Amino acid sequence: MIRGVVVRNVPRADAADIEVLQKAGSATVHEAQARLGLLAPYMRPIWPGAAIAGSAITVLVPPSDNWMLHVAVEQCREGDVLVVAPTSECLDGYFGELLATSLQVRGVKGLVIDAGCRDVKVLQEMGFPVWSRAISAQGTVKETLGSVNIPLVCAQQLVNPGDVIVADDDGVVVVPRLQAAKVAAAAQARVDKELATRKVLADGTLGLDYYQMRERLQAKGLRYVDSLDEL
Amino acid sequence: MIRGVVVRNVPRADAADIEVLQKAGSATVHEAQARLGLLAPYMRPIWPGAAIAGSAITVLVPPSDNWMLHVAVEQCREGDVLVVAPTSECLDGYFGELLATSLQVRGVKGLVIDAGCRDVKVLQEMGFPVWSRAISAQGTVKETLGSVNIPLVCAQQLVNPGDVIVADDDGVVVVPRLQAAKVAAAAQARVDKELATRKVLADGTLGLDYYQMRERLQAKGLRYVDSLDEL
Amino acid sequence: MIRGVVVRNVPRADAADIEVLQKAGSATVHEAQARLGLLAPYMRPIWPGAAIAGSAITVLVPPSDNWMLHVAVEQCREGDVLVVAPTSECLDGYFGELLATSLQVRGVKGLVIDAGCRDVKVLQEMGFPVWSRAISAQGTVKETLGSVNIPLVCAQQLVNPGDVIVADDDGVVVVPRLQAAKVAAAAQARVDKELATRKVLADGTLGLDYYQMRERLQAKGLRYVDSLDEL
Amino acid sequence: MIRGVVVRNVPRADAADIEVLQKAGSATVHEAQARLGLLAPYMRPIWPGAAIAGSAITVLVPPSDNWMLHVAVEQCREGDVLVVAPTSECLDGYFGELLATSLQVRGVKGLVIDAGCRDVKVLQEMGFPVWSRAISAQGTVKETLGSVNIPLVCAQQLVNPGDVIVADDDGVVVVPRLQAAKVAAAAQARVDKELATRKVLADGTLGLDYYQMRERLQAKGLRYVDSLDEL
Amino acid sequence: MIRGVVVRNVPRADAADIEVLQKAGSATVHEAQARLGLLAPYMRPIWPGAAIAGSAITVLVPPSDNWMLHVAVEQCREGDVLVVAPTSECLDGYFGELLATSLQVRGVKGLVIDAGCRDVKVLQEMGFPVWSRAISAQGTVKETLGSVNIPLVCAQQLVNPGDVIVADDDGVVVVPRLQAAKVAAAAQARVDKELATRKVLADGTLGLDYYQMRERLQAKGLRYVDSLDEL
Amino acid sequence: MIRGVVVRNVPRADAADIEVLQKAGSATVHEAQARLGLLAPYMRPIWPGAAIAGSAITVLVPPSDNWMLHVAVEQCREGDVLVVAPTSECLDGYFGELLATSLQVRGVKGLVIDAGCRDVKVLQEMGFPVWSRAISAQGTVKETLGSVNIPLVCAQQLVNPGDVIVADDDGVVVVPRLQAAKVAAAAQARVDKELATRKVLADGTLGLDYYQMRERLQAKGLRYVDSLDEL
Repeated sequence: MIRGVVVRNVPRADAADIEVLQKAGSATVHEAQARLGLLAPYMRPIWPGAAIAGSAITVLVPPSDNWMLHVAVEQCREGDVLVVAPTSECLDGYFGELLATSLQVRGVKGLVIDAGCRDVKVLQEMGFPVWSRAISAQGTVKETLGSVNIPLVCAQQLVNPGDVIVADDDGVVVVPRLQAAKVAAAAQARVDKELATRKVLADGTLGLDYYQMRERLQAKGLRYVDSLDEL
Repeated sequence: MIRGVVVRNVPRADAADIEVLQKAGSATVHEAQARLGLLAPYMRPIWPGAAIAGSAITVLVPPSDNWMLHVAVEQCREGDVLVVAPTSECLDGYFGELLATSLQVRGVKGLVIDAGCRDVKVLQEMGFPVWSRAISAQGTVKETLGSVNIPLVCAQQLVNPGDVIVADDDGVVVVPRLQAAKVAAAAQARVDKELATRKVLADGTLGLDYYQMRERLQAKGLRYVDSLDEL
Repeated sequence: MIRGVVVRNVPRADAADIEVLQKAGSATVHEAQARLGLLAPYMRPIWPGAAIAGSAITVLVPPSDNWMLHVAVEQCREGDVLVVAPTSECLDGYFGELLATSLQVRGVKGLVIDAGCRDVKVLQEMGFPVWSRAISAQGTVKETLGSVNIPLVCAQQLVNPGDVIVADDDGVVVVPRLQAAKVAAAAQARVDKELATRKVLADGTLGLDYYQMRERLQAKGLRYVDSLDEL
Repeated sequence: MIRGVVVRNVPRADAADIEVLQKAGSATVHEAQARLGLLAPYMRPIWPGAAIAGSAITVLVPPSDNWMLHVAVEQCREGDVLVVAPTSECLDGYFGELLATSLQVRGVKGLVIDAGCRDVKVLQEMGFPVWSRAISAQGTVKETLGSVNIPLVCAQQLVNPGDVIVADDDGVVVVPRLQAAKVAAAAQARVDKELATRKVLADGTLGLDYYQMRERLQAKGLRYVDSLDEL
Repeated sequence: MIRGVVVRNVPRADAADIEVLQKAGSATVHEAQARLGLLAPYMRPIWPGAAIAGSAITVLVPPSDNWMLHVAVEQCREGDVLVVAPTSECLDGYFGELLATSLQVRGVKGLVIDAGCRDVKVLQEMGFPVWSRAISAQGTVKETLGSVNIPLVCAQQLVNPGDVIVADDDGVVVVPRLQAAKVAAAAQARVDKELATRKVLADGTLGLDYYQMRERLQAKGLRYVDSLDEL
Repeated sequence: MIRGVVVRNVPRADAADIEVLQKAGSATVHEAQARLGLLAPYMRPIWPGAAIAGSAITVLVPPSDNWMLHVAVEQCREGDVLVVAPTSECLDGYFGELLATSLQVRGVKGLVIDAGCRDVKVLQEMGFPVWSRAISAQGTVKETLGSVNIPLVCAQQLVNPGDVIVADDDGVVVVPRLQAAKVAAAAQARVDKELATRKVLADGTLGLDYYQMRERLQAKGLRYVDSLDEL
């Protein structure tokens, strides 16, 4: 990490891959890349039901200082997702309706911020989705530099600019840009398979049988009894 | 607690008692058993408005390993509630739409899990209620045994298989199976009384007078002043 | 702080100022008083969408003892907001539908409590808003005195009786009674200005230009590069 | 759980088993019972270096009310360990030098409390060990009943009166009384084995070889590369 | 609260009262003022064993900005205690050995900070005690004004400049300056009484008898049984 | 991140730079790289007084599964520091005296783990330092692969294998390997300067004067008053 730098023109992920990942959703995508890449579960949507995916524009911000968000807006394009992380833990409200207005004009799909957000009612009315660590009306200053479009850590995951962010009610997953196509294909395969599995289970077939688990459970030593007194 | 055991055919609570407890709700039931039995308040519904009661099928699971949930499904009957606790603290997403499908087929009324849950949007669409400590897309493995239908601790309360679980927007209460009839009667009595009290208070009568608190407050030394300068 | 005292007839803030503050909302009011006065962001509404302002009636309560809430009801008038803080940290459910019924009869606009609340579904049906630290069905006793209408600390902010409480989806702000007129005027000015700014930003003008930030950012040393390799 | 009861003359565990468990320590004992029975890791010693084991005398206490601790003292004998849990979360200082004096006179070996403790400097001077969730000078009242020597949940584990508590710098483990002999034997076997293993490892033998892990790792698909570029 | 102000020459408490309060310690002082005034128990000493009391010099600081600490040093006199609170939650390391050197030269007895502290090893070598919410090497900036010697909230308690701070291993208590004499007298009375009580208890007299609790417990309904089966 | 890979022969940082960084300590090093690179302050030493620096060997581990630690030992050399992060939050005790024995034989200087550690008393006796998120006796399994020597996120910071870890009582800082020389020089310069500054301050010179802050404070609007009534 380095302070005081804005990187322009970072590469974005392929739009078709992004679309597949968005439809698959965070839980499936996370499984599709070996259960890696999920941001910490304290990251929650400020209103329910939104589901997006897009290329990350990253912003490193000082605690309680949102100056770099204004710098970052100019670097955003249609379909991007803004990803913000503070240099030390902070719950203050960095982001509200004015910044959302600017981002929405540029076609940004949403915000992921490891800190606080405010104006939540207006943001929901605008249809601008945010995943944040906190909701807080506490305002911030504009005094100290951070950076835009450098690799950073957001909620325990490394995010490089251009990586794909997949966010919905289950949380936020990051997919490295260069692996987006591979992960999208794996995710789509899982979606197809889960649809079929759900039908089987809906008919009453037990997972124990469908997944053929009984033998392995027995080998591990699982015992069935009618009462603990048998032990 | 013991690992590697599944107890079949545990006794359930009486259906009529369960119905009374469900209608009374968690807050009233908890009062009716001397303010005991409430699971820790970090247990929250993943979607608002559900209110259930049912007999507990208990599942002890290793951290980040949901294998035993598949084992538990087979032990569930119409009207049961699945209660899951990890052997050490874990927020991962043990449960999603596929397991919910299997449980719903069997008539299970909901899930209480001292860990994480995912697919929350689909679960709401299915009308399958969950009370959990976290929402997380983080997946789990199937490698290590736990147990089904042994006594366990879930969110700071002891739950025996067959105990009645009452869960709604206020939280989750456990009622020991053998006390279900007694607690149901006490809860119904409270419901009736509270209805009457609410009418009195809605007419403007002060609780101070209705509950006859003034004398005891005075005896404890409560002073009324017009300004702190009087002291 | 002092125990065992009820102060009657505390002064309230001006109704016109309160109305302006309510319309401005917590985030704007907080900015209008130099980013001070916000209660800790763990204070959350138990149902979304409510937005109120009113004069504070303060209640200091022992942990897990809600006796003083009953005492406080009598001191409330039309338009007040009840503000409750425990003498040591407690998440129990001090407040439910019966107390809400009494407060609503007297015209109280809502409750702010640095502890737990229950009966959340009924409270939403009644349209009685609450901002709390927790939702918990855990009941309380009536054994120990606290005080009503003394200065107290609620969620890290000092609240004097009669101060204005502004609460909405973004959180809770306290405005000292004697500064209410001044803060209301400053808040209204911000509302007007933000409306104009939002129009400019909605037209695509960058905040960097509108707020004339570019020169100061350059002076601080911000560099624009096309790749981190340039550094 | 039930309120308002004191059970006298509960059975204690065998002294020889307790001695073995104390020497083995919490980590080894916990492994010896299938990695079950550890209290939540927020339970920490108030001073370092103490290591005890003894039979549990259990105390259920209301939040911020230590009356039942005074009741419990009379039920304690030489070698016991007091185990205290509140009916809802509370960090107040239930316990200090006066109660410790009474317990020490009766030969009690220490206190485990899922709440707060105070007088920590004096307790260390007295050599009276405490494992607690918090250190807090906040005092408590004596108004409401709890119970003594009933089964209760302390820091996420079920503790029955007479169960063996093993506590040291690594945490607190509970061993069911009826399993104490079996667990003591298993713990001793682990102690002996670990001593031998430590010598082997101290000579430089790798655990990979000593535990014969290489083949199973290879079967799971572990790859060794000289650079990530090989992938 | 107000930003950008330094109040000079605030009144201090009486030195003799301070000395009594320091010797009594935080737990006893807190009891002596009706169990009020304890800062939240997350405030912990950075090294064990220190015990101080002194008049508060208060400092309101922005998040992650320690500029006002430098301003505050000049306002300190022999025997003072610096009390620091951020305007929103922050764990960064505001304070280290250089500021401690300046304070020690002026005879300041210690620091209480609702945020982070660093250089803990050197501070212990210097014998300069600190009570803080966190230990963190994270540095701060010097950009934004706060205030010195205004009333503020530190760790959930109101502190006015000149109030007495009592801090030791059990935590931190604030005593309002104008009540210092009264509280000191009450604290001394408690110290004397506890000394006598401890002797009685050390001789084996039960608190149940010494405090004459048996009758009141019986009136509340406490039952003694030899087994839960009796119930 | 990728699962199931061990990278051998990663480059280490220069020994002379490491020595300078170790002597400078975490707080100074963190300042020397623009206040970046500090791991979250929940990372605490399990015993006080240790201060180390060394090249990172990184280990990505599944929750509650320490198999990869055994794999990692073989990759360690004299002077290395093991850095361990779980793929999802876990407080279990991954590490104890046996693994420490193996590491100490190979000259490893310490462990940094964003999870739990046990055997703390023995580790202190061995002089093996650990910085961890928790102390917990809870054991782990050996079932699932992670990776060794891949880039990972530990306690909110990116750590690449070979980066320099600086750890002491103030916390843990990571210095990118390629910047180690530059940061070491900057850190040494700060050490020299702070020594001189401390002497000046110890003579009673105010930081306000020494750092020439008065003018800038005045420009920002700081007012000195003798009472808040002046405002």
